[in-house]
Amino acid sequence: MLEKLFNPKSVAIIGASAKELSIGNVITKNLLHYKFPGPIYPINPKTDEIRGLKAYPTIFDVAGDIDLAHIVIPPPFVPEAIEDCGKRGIKAVIINTAGFKEMGDEGEALEKQIVQNAKKYGVRVFGPNCQGIINTDPEIKAYCDFTFTYPKPGHISIVAQSGGVGAIIMQNFFDLDVGMRFYASNGNACDISIPEIMEYYGNDEKTRVIVLYVETLPNPEEFMEVAAKVATKKPILAMSAGTTEEGAKAATSHTGGLAGGIVTDLIFKKTGILAFKSAEEMCQAAVSFATQPVPKGNRVGMITNTGGPAIIATDELVKGGLKMPPLSGKAIDTLKQTMLPAASINNPIDVVATAGPSHFRSAVDVLMDEDQVDSIYIVFVTAPFSDCEGIAKELAIVGRQSKKPIVCNYITDKTQWTGTTRALQEGGIPFYDFPETAAKALVALTRYHDLQTGNTGTIKTFKDVNTDTVKEIIRKAKESSKEILPAASVYEILSAYNIPVAQWRIAADAGDAVNAAEELGYPVVIKADAESVVHKSDVGGVAVNLKDRNAVKSTAEEITKKIKADDLKFFVQKFMPGGKELIIGAKAEKGLGHLAMFGIGGIFVEVFKDVVFNIAPVTNLEA
Amino acid sequence: MLEKLFNPKSVAIIGASAKELSIGNVITKNLLHYKFPGPIYPINPKTDEIRGLKAYPTIFDVAGDIDLAHIVIPPPFVPEAIEDCGKRGIKAVIINTAGFKEMGDEGEALEKQIVQNAKKYGVRVFGPNCQGIINTDPEIKAYCDFTFTYPKPGHISIVAQSGGVGAIIMQNFFDLDVGMRFYASNGNACDISIPEIMEYYGNDEKTRVIVLYVETLPNPEEFMEVAAKVATKKPILAMSAGTTEEGAKAATSHTGGLAGGIVTDLIFKKTGILAFKSAEEMCQAAVSFATQPVPKGNRVGMITNTGGPAIIATDELVKGGLKMPPLSGKAIDTLKQTMLPAASINNPIDVVATAGPSHFRSAVDVLMDEDQVDSIYIVFVTAPFSDCEGIAKELAIVGRQSKKPIVCNYITDKTQWTGTTRALQEGGIPFYDFPETAAKALVALTRYHDLQTGNTGTIKTFKDVNTDTVKEIIRKAKESSKEILPAASVYEILSAYNIPVAQWRIAADAGDAVNAAEELGYPVVIKADAESVVHKSDVGGVAVNLKDRNAVKSTAEEITKKIKADDLKFFVQKFMPGGKELIIGAKAEKGLGHLAMFGIGGIFVEVFKDVVFNIAPVTNLEA
Repeated sequence: MLEKLFNPKSVAIIGASAKELSIGNVITKNLLHYKFPGPIYPINPKTDEIRGLKAYPTIFDVAGDIDLAHIVIPPPFVPEAIEDCGKRGIKAVIINTAGFKEMGDEGEALEKQIVQNAKKYGVRVFGPNCQGIINTDPEIKAYCDFTFTYPKPGHISIVAQSGGVGAIIMQNFFDLDVGMRFYASNGNACDISIPEIMEYYGNDEKTRVIVLYVETLPNPEEFMEVAAKVATKKPILAMSAGTTEEGAKAATSHTGGLAGGIVTDLIFKKTGILAFKSAEEMCQAAVSFATQPVPKGNRVGMITNTGGPAIIATDELVKGGLKMPPLSGKAIDTLKQTMLPAASINNPIDVVATAGPSHFRSAVDVLMDEDQVDSIYIVFVTAPFSDCEGIAKELAIVGRQSKKPIVCNYITDKTQWTGTTRALQEGGIPFYDFPETAAKALVALTRYHDLQTGNTGTIKTFKDVNTDTVKEIIRKAKESSKEILPAASVYEILSAYNIPVAQWRIAADAGDAVNAAEELGYPVVIKADAESVVHKSDVGGVAVNLKDRNAVKSTAEEITKKIKADDLKFFVQKFMPGGKELIIGAKAEKGLGHLAMFGIGGIFVEVFKDVVFNIAPVTNLEA
Repeated sequence: MLEKLFNPKSVAIIGASAKELSIGNVITKNLLHYKFPGPIYPINPKTDEIRGLKAYPTIFDVAGDIDLAHIVIPPPFVPEAIEDCGKRGIKAVIINTAGFKEMGDEGEALEKQIVQNAKKYGVRVFGPNCQGIINTDPEIKAYCDFTFTYPKPGHISIVAQSGGVGAIIMQNFFDLDVGMRFYASNGNACDISIPEIMEYYGNDEKTRVIVLYVETLPNPEEFMEVAAKVATKKPILAMSAGTTEEGAKAATSHTGGLAGGIVTDLIFKKTGILAFKSAEEMCQAAVSFATQPVPKGNRVGMITNTGGPAIIATDELVKGGLKMPPLSGKAIDTLKQTMLPAASINNPIDVVATAGPSHFRSAVDVLMDEDQVDSIYIVFVTAPFSDCEGIAKELAIVGRQSKKPIVCNYITDKTQWTGTTRALQEGGIPFYDFPETAAKALVALTRYHDLQTGNTGTIKTFKDVNTDTVKEIIRKAKESSKEILPAASVYEILSAYNIPVAQWRIAADAGDAVNAAEELGYPVVIKADAESVVHKSDVGGVAVNLKDRNAVKSTAEEITKKIKADDLKFFVQKFMPGGKELIIGAKAEKGLGHLAMFGIGGIFVEVFKDVVFNIAPVTNLEA
């Protein structure tokens, strides 16, 4: 369905312009600069030529096929332009123009009109209020976007809801001299959605890793379904913003979807997407995913020719859950033969700064052979008194055929060590300026292994529950506009779900409370039960371990004095000491079902905040 | 004292060599390449010329003064070379040679000999097993180091215990096109110490910020004294590695000093040093410290011309404790006049992607005028349809005279937008590729403000304590090789310190326990008291809320059955319900005094790990 969008053979720009600082001009320039091999048709009734290309008054004046049309004309004219595209047989359009849903009701109405017109003719719409797409394939070279980074071909495909963040990610790969495959930033996403783009990337042979940035999920269920499917095929690295209240406010003000942050992270986890808290970390990890295999476990072997960076890396790897196993006797015997006298034969293997190609090569070979090593971390400083290019070439030989991932903290001036750098690149060895960055990339590869191989568990369905009773209780509470259920209703719900509870009674007054206690047997608990009393302990509305009728009577009377509520009743329950206080909750999320909450309860909720959330249904293993 | 080291007018290299891949050759090359203006004297009895410079057989054959001598000859010859330097009147030497303390006893003996010889002649020694120093001052240009980065002049001074990490930091500033002032990595530090170097930087007029990396602190007290003094003069940004057990092991194996990690971080905090967990973050923050004023508070105003990066930055700023206050009515009125119609007039001010120089300038001016804004965060993507260079020039005008710090998330391809980049640089505006990085730099500036202005509190000395009693108890315990004090001793210590406790008795057996309980009055607690029983709850050695003699008797008998220890006694204490369980501790740290520990105690210690440490004495505010 997205073939024409991502693989256009010809492109029209409706609203192309000769004015240098205009979007229509920049898009034309980008297609030319990136050497798009197919015909480019600038559409503009007021000029004959734009950037040396023949301009056409309308798309109907173009003789050849048009696979993809950019629309960069003002919002009021866009719905008609879509209709024209439909009539002209154009199957994919990118609406770069802004001023639609994001600007209020009027814009939203225009956007609806666009979708209607597009559906009528089977036109697929990308945008509006968006950048566009890039395909780096040497045979396609489609730069249908107004950004400024001209990426080289590679295996990382990017989809970003925000063009700004997309630009940062793409430019970072460019700065790192790492290639990419597809780029897409679809703005308001009135038709073509992020899940659809993810699915397209998932089916693309040359895409090895997908990098995703989202702020809101307009349709979480669709997202989850597609993401779970794609994530089994290739790694998806993702980031969501809006994790603070202020950030979320900024994010939802755009599109009104489900805000990022905690829920999005839960969705990522549930669907097998690797979540990141930093765009930079995500980019750096993607570089390793693009060339390295996923490790089979969490045991790393380290080689270094300098001390400090290895210590920082060790901290970061261990914090990330990796282990540094000791070397086998066989490995130690070999290294004793091959290393310099000053070398330290441990894990890390410190080959020392004067080590040359043969020392590095032997150390890597030894770690490749070690059964108890799943991945290899190398610290390589280009000591000016060593044959660094020779070292890099040896590493590259191993790197090209490695079944274990290798990442390298490469400490150098790349403007001087060009041959060394090129050798590492040709060996497909990802390298990083900082130890913590390199370590985090390897941690990400290992986390992905855990995510992919982790048993997700099964969902248990409980048959012995009486949902009708529960629904009836909730219905009644709603009818009487109650926001807090009285204790009796809560316990009726627990009973309906067959959750065992200690015996209880509701008592109307102190005397009644004593009768209830006598029936239940001592010791008992008394809690104030009134709609206005939410945090009962805070107002002295809870008394535990009451051992006789006098204690019950005086306590109930005291509570009555403290809490002056007309609807005050007493919840009297058998005292069961020694248990754990828990908090259990559920929260409806639009388009997603429910979030379940579980954690330490009672007075500790606010103190420790030791509470976890998950998307229902929760499997036995997740639980 | 360190003038000759950091400002040499002439340099000798004892052990200079014509061999390309040798340290003595690389140092000679670096001095030449960096255009050291003074005379360079290669010392080598076997050759006449090294890299075009006349070589001398010994330092005594050199006619002119020698301010600084490198020593790169094998370890056994170094002590004598130091003696020669002393005789020749050389006051500073850098021993690059490795193979001393770090290699075991023999090397340590050699190192001691070096220090002795140096003291005899008043020679100051830098190293051994080290890189050296760099002074970027255009008049000095001393590259006395075998690294490979040739930094441009600036205001950041670096001191790194590890040459590898030092190289990473220096190269990063080079890659960011940011200048620096001094570099020093002193390896084994047998004489000139890191605190001494910090002090030198602190007194240097052109140093605006000090970047420090340490793994171990051989003399924590000296470090604290100097650091506290220097930190009042200029910002010190620091990182320590070895925060995990594995990392600490790697770090201490080097020098045997106080390991990094938690203790070093406490020292940093106590002395007003800004601590970092990532070398990259530290470097990025230093870039802002080098040009920006420290903010007067935590309220930030944001300007952006793209959405997503502003959301990520908002998350990061808010997480870092910054606030985004609403704009004043006056500010809103001005912006309504000056902004484009699509702009969003809030905090963040979204000037939109088509904004030009005047829009950015007005937004910055407005935030400069806002009393409730302490710092300014700018997201600036070089939209190809805007006059970006014009925007940068306006920002630079404001930046040059700003009393509020400005940091910028600058999203561009720097190989294309060279004029724009230069304009920002000339305005002294620090810019960053990633929103989270830019935000973290501003958070660091703000954290530094808090650190510098925070009231540190006062130390309360308690007079009403009986330390002699305590010392006697500890002495006796030591005498009998006890590692765990019996309950009676613990409570005697608490009494000696005048800490109120519930009444208690030690009982020899179950009968005795009943008598003790009768004396104390019910309810009581019983705890097993035996040297072998540390975690009493785990083995059923604790019973609370015992209400009568039967309960006490049966409980004591039960404990006796469970814990088969010959020295078993019972600690019987009045039961005091409703309190909080705490853990309080102290730990002696070599060269530092004591660490105090305080947190949630009892069975929760291991669960919540809600425990803090601090260096004694602890002030009332720290407490």
